[in-house]
Amino acid sequence: MPSKKNQEGITAKKNENFSEWYTQVVQKCELADLRYNVKGFLVFQPWSVLSMEKMYRHMEKNLQKKGHKPYWFPTVIPKSNFEKESSHVKGFTPEVFWITKGGNTKLEEPLALRPTSETAFYQMFNLWIRSYKDLPFKTYQRAQVFRYETKATRPFLRGREFHWIETHCVHATIEDAMKQVKEDMQTNKEILHDIYGLPFIFFQRPEWDKFAGAYRTFASDVLNPDGKVIQQPSTHIISPSFAKAFNITYKDKDGKEKPAYTTCYGPAISRIFASVVIVHGDDKGLKFPWEIAPIQVMIIPIDIENKEIMKKAESIKKQIEGFADVSLDSTEKRAGEKFNHWEMKGVPIRIDIGLNDIKKKKTTIFRRDLDKKEVINEKDLMKKINQISKEFTKNLIKKADKIFEGRIKKAKSLGEIKKAIEQGLIAKCNFCSVNKEGISCAEKIEKETGAQIRGTKLDEKSLVSGKCVICGRKANEIVYVARSY
Amino acid sequence: MPSKKNQEGITAKKNENFSEWYTQVVQKCELADLRYNVKGFLVFQPWSVLSMEKMYRHMEKNLQKKGHKPYWFPTVIPKSNFEKESSHVKGFTPEVFWITKGGNTKLEEPLALRPTSETAFYQMFNLWIRSYKDLPFKTYQRAQVFRYETKATRPFLRGREFHWIETHCVHATIEDAMKQVKEDMQTNKEILHDIYGLPFIFFQRPEWDKFAGAYRTFASDVLNPDGKVIQQPSTHIISPSFAKAFNITYKDKDGKEKPAYTTCYGPAISRIFASVVIVHGDDKGLKFPWEIAPIQVMIIPIDIENKEIMKKAESIKKQIEGFADVSLDSTEKRAGEKFNHWEMKGVPIRIDIGLNDIKKKKTTIFRRDLDKKEVINEKDLMKKINQISKEFTKNLIKKADKIFEGRIKKAKSLGEIKKAIEQGLIAKCNFCSVNKEGISCAEKIEKETGAQIRGTKLDEKSLVSGKCVICGRKANEIVYVARSY
Repeated sequence: MPSKKNQEGITAKKNENFSEWYTQVVQKCELADLRYNVKGFLVFQPWSVLSMEKMYRHMEKNLQKKGHKPYWFPTVIPKSNFEKESSHVKGFTPEVFWITKGGNTKLEEPLALRPTSETAFYQMFNLWIRSYKDLPFKTYQRAQVFRYETKATRPFLRGREFHWIETHCVHATIEDAMKQVKEDMQTNKEILHDIYGLPFIFFQRPEWDKFAGAYRTFASDVLNPDGKVIQQPSTHIISPSFAKAFNITYKDKDGKEKPAYTTCYGPAISRIFASVVIVHGDDKGLKFPWEIAPIQVMIIPIDIENKEIMKKAESIKKQIEGFADVSLDSTEKRAGEKFNHWEMKGVPIRIDIGLNDIKKKKTTIFRRDLDKKEVINEKDLMKKINQISKEFTKNLIKKADKIFEGRIKKAKSLGEIKKAIEQGLIAKCNFCSVNKEGISCAEKIEKETGAQIRGTKLDEKSLVSGKCVICGRKANEIVYVARSY
Repeated sequence: MPSKKNQEGITAKKNENFSEWYTQVVQKCELADLRYNVKGFLVFQPWSVLSMEKMYRHMEKNLQKKGHKPYWFPTVIPKSNFEKESSHVKGFTPEVFWITKGGNTKLEEPLALRPTSETAFYQMFNLWIRSYKDLPFKTYQRAQVFRYETKATRPFLRGREFHWIETHCVHATIEDAMKQVKEDMQTNKEILHDIYGLPFIFFQRPEWDKFAGAYRTFASDVLNPDGKVIQQPSTHIISPSFAKAFNITYKDKDGKEKPAYTTCYGPAISRIFASVVIVHGDDKGLKFPWEIAPIQVMIIPIDIENKEIMKKAESIKKQIEGFADVSLDSTEKRAGEKFNHWEMKGVPIRIDIGLNDIKKKKTTIFRRDLDKKEVINEKDLMKKINQISKEFTKNLIKKADKIFEGRIKKAKSLGEIKKAIEQGLIAKCNFCSVNKEGISCAEKIEKETGAQIRGTKLDEKSLVSGKCVICGRKANEIVYVARSY
């Protein structure tokens, strides 16, 4: 199936022409086919699907451990549900795909292809939640969501259909809601950072940059090599008016009916996958973190016609099965082509099987975390694979964290912000206010630098001193400024 | 969250009032909430989702082992794709939900919410398949499909959105296509029968009862206690005109461009789940086969205030974790209520923790396959759980197979068919032909009995002798007759 073109390898340099590099990786590594005949919709191919399925499993297991129960809600939401909450309808309806016909019959009420599912979950919360004993009520679903995106689409990053998880929770108090937000941030750390290997900052977004219907929005930003940040999972305390619109209340210990508070957290797996590709990839192609690699170990027989080699390859495969996802490339391509192919595809460990090694009872291993070849004693193979599996993602993280931290720059003036942005960095500066009063300063930054205020960090609230770098008034915040897509 | 009503237990008898029994099980076991405000769309609740996720995992693992690669195709398909193949468009368009608007903009071309994905996959097959070396090309996707069903809907059994897997394969010859059909039948046996515990017959459907666009349709039927069969997974050799319409060809060894043959297999997980509920359930409620039980072992402390009991319960839970999905019910309900609740919910093993047992170093186990309580030595617990886990599904299968086989009745006349159908049986009889020539005989059967010819069994083709029970002409087939939904 792979055409000649796909076998050529990546020719663009990641740090010189990031955009072209990304396009080549998506196509040549067969992550998605962009030729489907509806704009903004992709055909996700096995190499990305296998990885994203693993990403789902890690995320879902973590959420379940924290008490979230899985649901499957309908893909369609009646129009009237949207209209119950005005800021949500205003924020989302321009982006909604509408189903208006069933067969040849006009539907009595148009149905939205869900762009997000608050309005579906909330009407059921209204039926399910009775008492303080039911709270917190923690749910999630694995689902696709759809947005009639009018901006330019980009594979995995911005499309009209994405594969995500959405959690929806109900709480007795706003304090409990805030506790949930912090738990979501912790989940983001445990999964996105520790398993997928992605460095990020979890910001509280400024007032003017909240989710449609949110009281508070928190979102994690990941940095691309071109200096732009991508918004990855966000978590929101939903505006109380939203729960009120759906009449989500509970009877408290004192017997009184009280309004509930809701939160949601939305890791978009297909979008996070893009960051995995971008953050870890290099000029050769992909590098998958161990836990989410479609294949973890690839065995390459140097000569597929040689029976001794093939026998050894099969026996090593059997040995590894059960411990890791292992495969054997017995296609007719030359061994050298296979090396390049699987390096490009980002398989963590490659094992080359040749006669010389067999005679000497040695095994040659190539590890993609360090791009290093090692010759070990055959009998130590499983011990070695086990060791690499433990180090692999940590090595990717170490590198990614270092790059990320090196690209955050303290700026003391608008000029310094501008300079940092031009260098592809994230600028960090004192700022007056992320409420309404700060809007004019924020606009000034955006106008001068083309970058936006991404928000503040919860754990830096107490560290603020000095003056706003724009207006010179007392600084109440430390904000981060970056360009985004 | 569970309301009083849900805690009452099942009051209908499965074999006396099957329909009411099923409704109660769906609601009281919290499998799905039927109150979502779009007709035919369900909210699947955690107790069914957890099981269906396990069902997906078993089926996907099996398909991958057999060489199917996973894809995620878009949920939407342009109208023009449908119109490429006339019998498919005729069969499906009355059932299609149409998306006609994005935001406030009318779409240039209406998009179908996929009712099935042949027309999406095939246009990509056209791009991907070049040579005989690419064949067989075996794919699958996990997806939801949507049908604007006009018949009465029934939770899990017939709805407007269902969760399924669809495989789509391309083959060089019709013989290879038939080989695939047989492999699909084998998969059905390995998963539906051996893991989910469902007895079925895999029929070749009569000519007049094929999938829209199929050259041959094969489908498995499962029997309900009311004597009606439910169609479960089907596999099809797609009509060559379909591949032709999408121009799916390949270059053969001799360098000639040849038309390809396609097949598909469609296990609808949410519909199969209904059969799991129906076939194994009893008057107390659900019985889950071991491998797909949401929770496999439930620990009930007889007194949650007693520290010794709680400590023992926790330590037993720890012991079981890793081997099975285990949970501890430490809610405030009475132990007796908990026993009934988890029996109704179909948890395979219950462990009751009380002071007497602790003193005597004994453990009390209840197993739902045999509905039997056993007191064992505490030290033998893990051995016992391991043993039950191995026997559990086999015991369910043994019972289900026996019931199923006992309800197939050889009939020698229309009168005998009628009598069998009235008794809720499947009738088996000699028949002239399942091609066009047999239609009038088939209609006669349907008119007299209200039942349909479900098809023939491939392995009984050679066993035919005697005369058609209706027209008296030479019999060419042994057919099975049953009522269906």
